Formats: sequence, structure tokens, C-alpha cells
Amino acid sequence: MPIVQIELIEGRTVEQKRVLAEKVTRAIVESLSCPETAVSIIMREMQTDNFAKAGKLWCDK
Amino acid sequence: MPIVQIELIEGRTVEQKRVLAEKVTRAIVESLSCPETAVSIIMREMQTDNFAKAGKLWCDK
Amino acid sequence: MPIVQIELIEGRTVEQKRVLAEKVTRAIVESLSCPETAVSIIMREMQTDNFAKAGKLWCDK
Amino acid sequence: MPIVQIELIEGRTVEQKRVLAEKVTRAIVESLSCPETAVSIIMREMQTDNFAKAGKLWCDK
Amino acid sequence: MPIVQIELIEGRTVEQKRVLAEKVTRAIVESLSCPETAVSIIMREMQTDNFAKAGKLWCDK
Amino acid sequence: MPIVQIELIEGRTVEQKRVLAEKVTRAIVESLSCPETAVSIIMREMQTDNFAKAGKLWCDK
Repeated sequence: MPIVQIELIEGRTVEQKRVLAEKVTRAIVESLSCPETAVSIIMREMQTDNFAKAGKLWCDK
Repeated sequence: MPIVQIELIEGRTVEQKRVLAEKVTRAIVESLSCPETAVSIIMREMQTDNFAKAGKLWCDK
Repeated sequence: MPIVQIELIEGRTVEQKRVLAEKVTRAIVESLSCPETAVSIIMREMQTDNFAKAGKLWCDK
Repeated sequence: MPIVQIELIEGRTVEQKRVLAEKVTRAIVESLSCPETAVSIIMREMQTDNFAKAGKLWCDK
Repeated sequence: MPIVQIELIEGRTVEQKRVLAEKVTRAIVESLSCPETAVSIIMREMQTDNFAKAGKLWCDK
Repeated sequence: MPIVQIELIEGRTVEQKRVLAEKVTRAIVESLSCPETAVSIIMREMQTDNFAKAGKLWCDK
């Protein structure tokens, strides 16, 4: 039941998400000694006009 | 002001979401004795390559 | 894998949370025809100075 | 490291989001005396069939 | 129905949160031309061992 | 700007969180080829009466 939510800028391939899911799950299992089946990961992809840093939209940088 | 966020795999019909909103709202009102108007529900639909369980993407299962 | 996050003002009893978990889970199972074991619910309790509506803290109302 | 997540009904222009990012960032900087570069904002746009208030979908109102 | 979630390092006073709620609400109302009563803000305070940047806990910096 | 939110049952040591932050950050950097400084991690610890699976509170299992 570690539940992980990851916000990403859009544009990742399915293969990158596949590797991300594997590696993040392993990182959690190793750190917390929980079973792999307990780990859920939600990825959310943001358009570049839906993220801002220091008051500026990502698409304006 | 119970605010509810629900993550779902994509592919639900509007009618399913309509029933979900009604039933979840009623469940909260009955459990917490709060007014119906206080309940907000956000649904977020995930592509099957944006959810992973046990290190595997949902689309790979 | 419906994953539910519920924000509540603090002060609910364990019994209220127990009923909430049962009823919200049943509402989701009935609406989406998913197995009960697929439903996870996270409750987060807010202090009254950590929620605001219409620009006013809940503790100031 | 104030990290802000804002849920909106879809349909805002990029210019509205640009102004929102600027104004919300400034509001946080002024209130908390933190540097502008520390503020991240995530906007999430909801379809009108993905938000409910008082048990009713937004698209049904 | 803009719903705002703000993650903060713990240690803000109630007065700081009061000002934050007022200013962020006004920023949203001005940017999106929505009524003040539609804006909800959830603040979540993190202990310094519950936030990490660049792989390091905040309490270790 | 990958921003990660992790929900955990309470009871982890600071050392476990330190390792978690390091390993999850590395997992993201390796998967997405982003700089380490871009990764933020928020951990949220849940009491066992604030998490439910299959309609049952964690504290009742």
C-alpha cells in the first residue's frame, strides 16, 4: 500500500513508463521491505501549459 | 467539504460516472452526517499505460 | 484499482471512518462492477486552519 | 517548495493559465516570504463529466 | 470549483495561513473570473523528514 | 519537475525515508534522463485508521 503519484511533463514513451514503473517499485520495495504487489503507481502527464515554475508556464520557458 | 478524488482506469461511460457520483455522495452523507451540497467529487481517468501495480504497467497485464 | 482520496475536517471517530470505508467501497463496487479487493481508500484529516472556503479559514467561520 | 495543485473545469485559455500562474505564485511569495523559484504549480483540467457537486455531474447541471 | 491543494513545510502561523487563503483565493478569482465562494483551498503541512529535493530529505540540508 | 507523492502507513524511521528518497530519485533520473535536482518527493504518513482496502480499515485487519 505505498501508493505513488508521479506528475510528469507529457511526452514519455510507453517504454520509458515501463522502466519507470519497474525501477520506482524496486526502489520502494528495497527501502521499505514491503512486498512488490503492495506498490501502486499512478502517472499523470501534464501539458506544458499546465505546469508553472517561478510563476512562468513551462511552455513559455 | 469532504473532497473526494477518485483515480479510475479510462473507459467508463457517462452513465457509470453519474451513478458513481450519486452513490459515493450518498455513502459520505450517511457516514458523516454532512449535507449533500458539501460533497465534491473529482474523477481522474488514467490511460492503461499510466497505472502500474507490482512494477508492471496495466497495459502489459 | 479505483484509488480514492478523501479530505475531511478532523474530528471523525474510528467508527465513522469504518462506516465510511464500507459504504464508499460498496458504492464504487456497485457503480463500476469492480471487485471489492480492488478499492483502496486514503482518508486525510485536516485541521480547521488548513482548509479555506471563499478565502476564509474554516476555523474563522 | 510550496507545491500547488489546482483542479479546474476544462476550457481555460493559455493566457488565463499564464495569468493564474503569475498571480498565484505572487500570492504565495507574499504570504509566506518564500522565493519565487520555490513555487511549483500543477493545473489539472477536468471534463465536465469528471466533476460532481452534491451528487450531480457538472455536465448535468 | 477550482480546488487548490498546497503542500507546505510545517511551521506557518495561523495568521500566515489566513493571509495565504485570502491572497490565493483572490488570485484565482481575478484570473478565472469565478465567484469567490467557488474556491476551496486545502493546505497540507509536511514535516521536514517528509519532503525531499534532489534525493535529499529537507531535514538533512 | 517530476513531482512524486507517496502515501505510506505511518511508522517509518527517518533512515528509511532517507533511503527511500535517494532510491526513488535515482529510479526516476535513470528512467527519464532528467536532472536529479528536478525531482521533488512528498511523503505522507497515514494512521492505520485512515487507510482502507476492500472496505476494511487497515487497523481492523
